[in-house]
Amino acid sequence: MDSCVTPLRHGSLSLVQTTDFFYPLVEDPYMMGRIACANVLSDLYAMGITECDNMLMLLSVSQRMSDKEREKVMPLMMRGFRDAAEEGGTSVTGGQTVLNPWIIIGGVATVVCQPSEFIMPDNAVPGDVLVLTKPLGTQVAVNAHQWIDIPEKWNKIKLVVSKEDVELAYQEAMYNMAMLNRTAAGLMHTFNAHAATDITGFGILGHAQNLAQQQRCDVAFVIHNLPIIAKMAAISKACGSMFGLVQGSSAETSGGLLVCLPREQAARFCAEIKSPKYGEGHQAWIIGIVEKGNRSARIIDKPRIIEVTPRGAGAGGQEGTPTTTTTPSPEALV
Amino acid sequence: MDSCVTPLRHGSLSLVQTTDFFYPLVEDPYMMGRIACANVLSDLYAMGITECDNMLMLLSVSQRMSDKEREKVMPLMMRGFRDAAEEGGTSVTGGQTVLNPWIIIGGVATVVCQPSEFIMPDNAVPGDVLVLTKPLGTQVAVNAHQWIDIPEKWNKIKLVVSKEDVELAYQEAMYNMAMLNRTAAGLMHTFNAHAATDITGFGILGHAQNLAQQQRCDVAFVIHNLPIIAKMAAISKACGSMFGLVQGSSAETSGGLLVCLPREQAARFCAEIKSPKYGEGHQAWIIGIVEKGNRSARIIDKPRIIEVTPRGAGAGGQEGTPTTTTTPSPEALV
Repeated sequence: MDSCVTPLRHGSLSLVQTTDFFYPLVEDPYMMGRIACANVLSDLYAMGITECDNMLMLLSVSQRMSDKEREKVMPLMMRGFRDAAEEGGTSVTGGQTVLNPWIIIGGVATVVCQPSEFIMPDNAVPGDVLVLTKPLGTQVAVNAHQWIDIPEKWNKIKLVVSKEDVELAYQEAMYNMAMLNRTAAGLMHTFNAHAATDITGFGILGHAQNLAQQQRCDVAFVIHNLPIIAKMAAISKACGSMFGLVQGSSAETSGGLLVCLPREQAARFCAEIKSPKYGEGHQAWIIGIVEKGNRSARIIDKPRIIEVTPRGAGAGGQEGTPTTTTTPSPEALV
Repeated sequence: MDSCVTPLRHGSLSLVQTTDFFYPLVEDPYMMGRIACANVLSDLYAMGITECDNMLMLLSVSQRMSDKEREKVMPLMMRGFRDAAEEGGTSVTGGQTVLNPWIIIGGVATVVCQPSEFIMPDNAVPGDVLVLTKPLGTQVAVNAHQWIDIPEKWNKIKLVVSKEDVELAYQEAMYNMAMLNRTAAGLMHTFNAHAATDITGFGILGHAQNLAQQQRCDVAFVIHNLPIIAKMAAISKACGSMFGLVQGSSAETSGGLLVCLPREQAARFCAEIKSPKYGEGHQAWIIGIVEKGNRSARIIDKPRIIEVTPRGAGAGGQEGTPTTTTTPSPEALV
């Protein structure tokens, strides 16, 4: 499970908590702080928990930074983390900082709650559908963005993307990674979700497989559609087996929730999450179905790639909401 | 405070939690795991909390280790951590592991408890006395032990200690660092402790000052006695200003609790902690007094050094319990 659940000595309460820590992957320290916090909280959100009682921050300062760099960078990173915690309705009351060769940022999220407040991720049944709440491709976007300044790397992908495409994709990835999955967690209750997990280091397929293995019914998850930040599937393909984005193995950071919903609720979930009352930029896609099976997950042979246009892109997108166009198969993209 | 206390939405319950992580400082991976766990839990124990509902483990594997080293070392370290958690009546249910240039081990300890289960560390009054539950000198012992194989370092201290002294002190330090402060935490309730903290990176004086600053009454802490692992004061003195052990500034790892107790209870606390019912090796010393003052702490000009003989030493010590001899001042030691 994404968080550990410990029954307490007090009434029917449970302690639910999770910890995660990371190395920076974007250049903006403030955004990196927000992303780290969103990623820590995401493990609670994946269980349908919308509240967090307390956060601790884990930090290491790099010994290779000058005093000036430290004084500039670390407060911004901490500020981003704290701001995201506040957006999640919680606050950071403790933690620890050490010196290390590399910068580390992460945290601990803890909540004490009633059983009704969380959704055990093991109730998927045949006939459910799978919904994903953020587009894939964050790792590809972050890497491609670094390659802009590395000619031998850039040469590998320059036939399939422009620098502007990559810049927009990077901004879109950063926006998505920093977005809390809290709205999605709340809607899991409204629409009677049967199970969920968040997409991080094992990629969409890895996490779908983990989730499938935990189910009480004999089910299999079959993924038909892959919403991906525009052009990232093309980059992944141009890089051979390096990412495996369309194969579902590309790591994501602070990815969306993969939610199993009753078929009749899924479209309503996807419509509701776009409501302006939850703020800008939320979106969700039906990406697959739950069949009878042996607790496995797979992506169909030629999945439909849903190209998610970055909200910063000039053409098409209305402000604050990414637009999507679809193509029949990944082959069409390159 | 050593742990953060968050009032919960449920009844009068509070969430108390703490996190700490460290780099290895002893050579034995199993003992390092125990020490890390004892150090994490110590922040709960310092608040008089004896139970822990859940622990998470934070780990980084060094990228410089060979596969063979990893497979040998990391399971031992994790085992030590888990064994100490079990001794503390809790268990490790989650955590995270990353790759890093350096090895990291640490964790998160969390408990949900009633107000009666913890002792807010702010009730010291003039007339109280200060008790310490582990001897000082762990950092000096660990460093001196590394110097045995570094001639230019060893030359600085070889006039005041033998290699055997250092080996025994190192074993004693390791034993103490791995010991849980749980018994002491329980006795804080029995003997009506007014405040406490645990001694770690800021040394005895640093932590005494922190604790003094938090008091509600106008008090000052005055330390008269320093229980120190035998010969470590002499090493510290031979090294000039490097450690400052007798000045109270030498860092400790997983040190004892510094407890403010009513005068009439302190001797009983020190007698009770030696009871065989708590297992072998516990000891405590009255080290100072609480006066009226401006929320500060100091060590008197020539404190009495209590030389704590390592339990492994051939002469004197009965099995399992260190013996102590005292000298009038640190000057007499070198």
